[in-house]
Amino acid sequence: MEVIVDSLQHNLSGLELTPLDNGFLLTYQQRIILRHTVQAPCLWVGGGEADIEMFRGNFNIKDRLNEKIALTDTVITRQPEGWTVHFSRGESLGTTLVITTDEQGRLKITLQNDDKTHNRIWLRLAAKSEDHIYGCGEQFSYFDLRGKPFPLWTSEQGVGRNKQTYVTWLADCKENAGGDYYWTFFPQPTFVSTQKYYCHVDNSCYMNFDFSHPDYHELALWEDNATLRFECADSYINLLEKLTALLGRQPELPDWVYDGVTLGIQGGTEVCQQKLDVMRNGGVKVNGIWAQDWSGIRMTSFGKRVMWNWKWNSDLYPQLDARIQQWNSQGVQFLAYINPYVASDRDLCEEASKRGYLTKDANGGDYHVEFGEFYGGVVDLTNPEAYDWFKGGIKKNLIELGCGGWMADFGEYLPTDTYLYNGVSAEIMHNAWPALWAKCNYEALQETGKLGEILFFMRAGYTHSQKYSVMMWAGDQNVDWSLDDGPASVIPAALSLAMSGHGLHHSDIGGYTTLFDMKRTKELLLRWCDFSAFTPMMRTHEGNRPGDNWQFDSDAETIAHFARMTTVFTTLKPYIKQAVAQNAQTGLPVMRPLFLHYEDDAHTYTLKYQYLFGRDLLVAPVYEENVDTWSLYLPQDSWINIWTGDTHQGGEITIDAPIGQPPVFYRANSEWAALFGSLRHI
Amino acid sequence: MEVIVDSLQHNLSGLELTPLDNGFLLTYQQRIILRHTVQAPCLWVGGGEADIEMFRGNFNIKDRLNEKIALTDTVITRQPEGWTVHFSRGESLGTTLVITTDEQGRLKITLQNDDKTHNRIWLRLAAKSEDHIYGCGEQFSYFDLRGKPFPLWTSEQGVGRNKQTYVTWLADCKENAGGDYYWTFFPQPTFVSTQKYYCHVDNSCYMNFDFSHPDYHELALWEDNATLRFECADSYINLLEKLTALLGRQPELPDWVYDGVTLGIQGGTEVCQQKLDVMRNGGVKVNGIWAQDWSGIRMTSFGKRVMWNWKWNSDLYPQLDARIQQWNSQGVQFLAYINPYVASDRDLCEEASKRGYLTKDANGGDYHVEFGEFYGGVVDLTNPEAYDWFKGGIKKNLIELGCGGWMADFGEYLPTDTYLYNGVSAEIMHNAWPALWAKCNYEALQETGKLGEILFFMRAGYTHSQKYSVMMWAGDQNVDWSLDDGPASVIPAALSLAMSGHGLHHSDIGGYTTLFDMKRTKELLLRWCDFSAFTPMMRTHEGNRPGDNWQFDSDAETIAHFARMTTVFTTLKPYIKQAVAQNAQTGLPVMRPLFLHYEDDAHTYTLKYQYLFGRDLLVAPVYEENVDTWSLYLPQDSWINIWTGDTHQGGEITIDAPIGQPPVFYRANSEWAALFGSLRHI
Repeated sequence: MEVIVDSLQHNLSGLELTPLDNGFLLTYQQRIILRHTVQAPCLWVGGGEADIEMFRGNFNIKDRLNEKIALTDTVITRQPEGWTVHFSRGESLGTTLVITTDEQGRLKITLQNDDKTHNRIWLRLAAKSEDHIYGCGEQFSYFDLRGKPFPLWTSEQGVGRNKQTYVTWLADCKENAGGDYYWTFFPQPTFVSTQKYYCHVDNSCYMNFDFSHPDYHELALWEDNATLRFECADSYINLLEKLTALLGRQPELPDWVYDGVTLGIQGGTEVCQQKLDVMRNGGVKVNGIWAQDWSGIRMTSFGKRVMWNWKWNSDLYPQLDARIQQWNSQGVQFLAYINPYVASDRDLCEEASKRGYLTKDANGGDYHVEFGEFYGGVVDLTNPEAYDWFKGGIKKNLIELGCGGWMADFGEYLPTDTYLYNGVSAEIMHNAWPALWAKCNYEALQETGKLGEILFFMRAGYTHSQKYSVMMWAGDQNVDWSLDDGPASVIPAALSLAMSGHGLHHSDIGGYTTLFDMKRTKELLLRWCDFSAFTPMMRTHEGNRPGDNWQFDSDAETIAHFARMTTVFTTLKPYIKQAVAQNAQTGLPVMRPLFLHYEDDAHTYTLKYQYLFGRDLLVAPVYEENVDTWSLYLPQDSWINIWTGDTHQGGEITIDAPIGQPPVFYRANSEWAALFGSLRHI
Repeated sequence: MEVIVDSLQHNLSGLELTPLDNGFLLTYQQRIILRHTVQAPCLWVGGGEADIEMFRGNFNIKDRLNEKIALTDTVITRQPEGWTVHFSRGESLGTTLVITTDEQGRLKITLQNDDKTHNRIWLRLAAKSEDHIYGCGEQFSYFDLRGKPFPLWTSEQGVGRNKQTYVTWLADCKENAGGDYYWTFFPQPTFVSTQKYYCHVDNSCYMNFDFSHPDYHELALWEDNATLRFECADSYINLLEKLTALLGRQPELPDWVYDGVTLGIQGGTEVCQQKLDVMRNGGVKVNGIWAQDWSGIRMTSFGKRVMWNWKWNSDLYPQLDARIQQWNSQGVQFLAYINPYVASDRDLCEEASKRGYLTKDANGGDYHVEFGEFYGGVVDLTNPEAYDWFKGGIKKNLIELGCGGWMADFGEYLPTDTYLYNGVSAEIMHNAWPALWAKCNYEALQETGKLGEILFFMRAGYTHSQKYSVMMWAGDQNVDWSLDDGPASVIPAALSLAMSGHGLHHSDIGGYTTLFDMKRTKELLLRWCDFSAFTPMMRTHEGNRPGDNWQFDSDAETIAHFARMTTVFTTLKPYIKQAVAQNAQTGLPVMRPLFLHYEDDAHTYTLKYQYLFGRDLLVAPVYEENVDTWSLYLPQDSWINIWTGDTHQGGEITIDAPIGQPPVFYRANSEWAALFGSLRHI
């Protein structure tokens, strides 16, 4: 190693660069970030050709790796604001790494390969064997990410998501759709270490964060450059505050969200009215109707599909405009559905095509994606005019109609072989797409003054979805009890997203994916309803094969169950609202890992199926079939069983857990104790 | 590129090295072998750490790749016998490639990385897009290997071997045992190109031969050195003669092999006698009894297992010595069973351990492999004393007993974390083990003068198994009709092995693996029997769950079927014997791809489920359930249906194919036409 200056230490927010034999050590506020020697280097560069196949949002990704080269030699130059380290190996191979702090005092590391044909970077961050790692967006199978690699690529989440399940195998055989533990709609190159720092990478390329080595985390990027930011804090709560200061926070939810359940209904105005009446007559608190087929349907051999032409279809929904007004006057919102595609055989697509607003294929023609007996054009959100046109459509066709919200579906399908207006390769834009899609929706609200009044919810996400996606939902769980794709998987999803800076999360009550032999049972629907009452939003989904599934109105007992649990939910309104406000103000998520408030309790770092709902409720949803007791862990505190009033001081306990009494505890000394206590009488 | 001498051409058996801009071209007898430029190099080196997990012969292999570096710069030095090319990239990275011819005029290329920590090599051989590739040992799923990578690692062959089958998924879930298209007991780094050259790599490390690129074949080796040999010929028959001159050939089979079927029987002397009597009374030609439990049995929760203590068990087989004599006098051999392990709880293992003949673990203790409720020590065949001791056991316990042969099972399980006498890492010795195991058996025959009299048969193999394994069998097919693990898979297995230099192959009649819902049907057994009558050996296996399977004596019709088909087989004796002799003399395999004799017929290069049996019989086994006709391809010739006498001149045809009349044709102008014609009357 060659050192240009003799003194390497700066006093830049606790940043130190210390020479070693044949290398250096970079520390930031006493955390070792980089450790480099010739023998154990921290940086590799190389070249590869991405081999990416997509079929309906399911990706098969391989790297045709051409080179991977350790850069062993370093020349360090002191700069006014930090250091430049030039890594090299021989004459022709090099990367420049700039270490500095940004305006907010964050450690900022930028890398740029000297040779742009070197489109791969592997950077090893120093780690301790005992570190736990959280984040990387929405992770459904693991909460503590230590011990495994996590490829970061927005895609379908997979059906079953576990190669050991029969459902996954079936889905794999059909459409490579089974998925695996790391498949997610919302990946993000951001993680929190139990050394109490976060690391965030600004890029949007395909990445793989590998946390399997005891001594380092290896971040692989399919790019010729990288920008990393780090910040430290003395508590996880402060760390999340800092992280969300960087990435953005979600605004508060519309007030109506806390007033009941949003019923997923299809079939037209009168079906909505009838089901609404049935539920309200049964005592269910209903805050909205969500009708994904508001724009009409298309018959295919697979069954009904939504017509992807984002305008009110008055044949299927006659008098919808008037009915929305009527429902609104009764405290019921109407929620619609959109996604960033336009059906190739309909007028919005024709208009977009004429205006040149669709992404292109290699020959310069419009790119059409196959969705199963129909095609969709991809609205080019990198084209400011196309973006504004689509946003204008949201304003006109949804907001002006009086929608209280919508599902802003998809976002994770951008094909890598399409061509974009901004000239950036679709491989690089693929991950960025969901946040761009979120931003389009967000601005439609912002520019119409409807933020905090209208709610859209998304499944896909990436960096900046914190700021632009005002509510996440967990995507398409199976209508089964599988750990990796049933109700259990929603909990690590919410918690990992919380550690990535997004604090608002809910799920389809009862799950969605109804395939093969999977059919939603009554028990699954009721347990999921129990769970959802302790999340920031309750919303049902009929599933993709409604007739196969138990539904909210399938029998009187189910309706009564929804009546009771929506009453629990609405009773909690002031408490949830305050937690949501905290999230908006400081990035403290609504559904929280226990260690956020019990840092000293080592056991809390390994819990992935229970959470704190706000500060004072501990929730451990029942995610197994046919059980009547449930075991869970309570950190040291004074806990009261919300249904029985029994008090516990902490530790592993097993309690009765009948349907309708999800395992929930409140802190005895909570300022909300009286409110919580009242739930026992519902 | 730097060129040390101005003239680079030698006249060494058609070897030419031609300078290019920034590179060179190596041709051998007008075939372009290497094409190197700075922009499109032919050589990469790197380093990696093998991550190899084994469970009962099923391997999970990953490379923790540290580096992969293209060596772009070359310095060529003319040598008396060829050239030295020093490849480099910067100062510290280099590999020396020596191009020469060996004593027999073969092109010989040796590589040695300058830095021994660079334990990976990737070499690209020039290819044409239209080339077909065959060989790589025994390949069950593909015959033409073009278009896919083929990892070369001896292992279990997998159960199902196709991720799209339910059986494979079940086997994967249980023991990672499902396998994939390239799993094989007998891999080999040898291939034949339709440019009419072979390429053979001398090493035994883990390799991956990737034939998926139109312009090159990429050979990846987990080693710091490599030796490749090439030879060209004007016909495939000559090419195989040259290849087997390099690798060795199998001796002729014992004469008794042609005299009937070898019956797989278990259960003791009297069971063998009874079944033998039943079959012979039914008119079945029987040449031997193969009793794998001759050394006793061990009861486990999975059922009966063979006692791995390689000595006659006189409790289960009373009077076996005398009975062998009696059977022999009636033309019936007794065949036993051995493998290269010794059960940890038995005396042979105790003796081996005392003598220090077992492979070691990391602490210097004996290494014991888990086999399912029992363990086995690994006899260290790299220790000459251990090798001789085991060979001595074969001579004493099997040959002296009067065995006519045995199954020499296993060989593909050498754990990579065991330590060997010869100091070579078990990772490198793993692939070499099957041939070492074969050699031990071979020498036991050779040294007792029993070659050509006693027959052992093996499933595992590698380079040199050509010389030492006197007969292969196809391992453990499923007792089902699956393409990749049923009877169909035996055909590409035999043909790819033929193209790798091993010309003697047969299979368990009816298959072996009886798991999950798989049970052998009568139809499967009869069709497999039909097929086996047109291979060099007929041998049955009860399967691992005999009670679940249809057996040769399950009904009178089955016995009669075996009577008829063994008569067909024994009638063919002079023809088969002559084909086996050709194999012994010139390496012309007994089961041959059609293109060996019909080079000009492009269609023959894609046929993987039919073969020539010797020169004059064309066989297209029925490998589907519940069919009564069969379609096949005949190259231009005059072909006579062996059962009907109908004549065909070539092309695609569909014929009646009832059980007992496997689609077989003979050449009208064969010298054996009268013999073939006689089969119609059996």
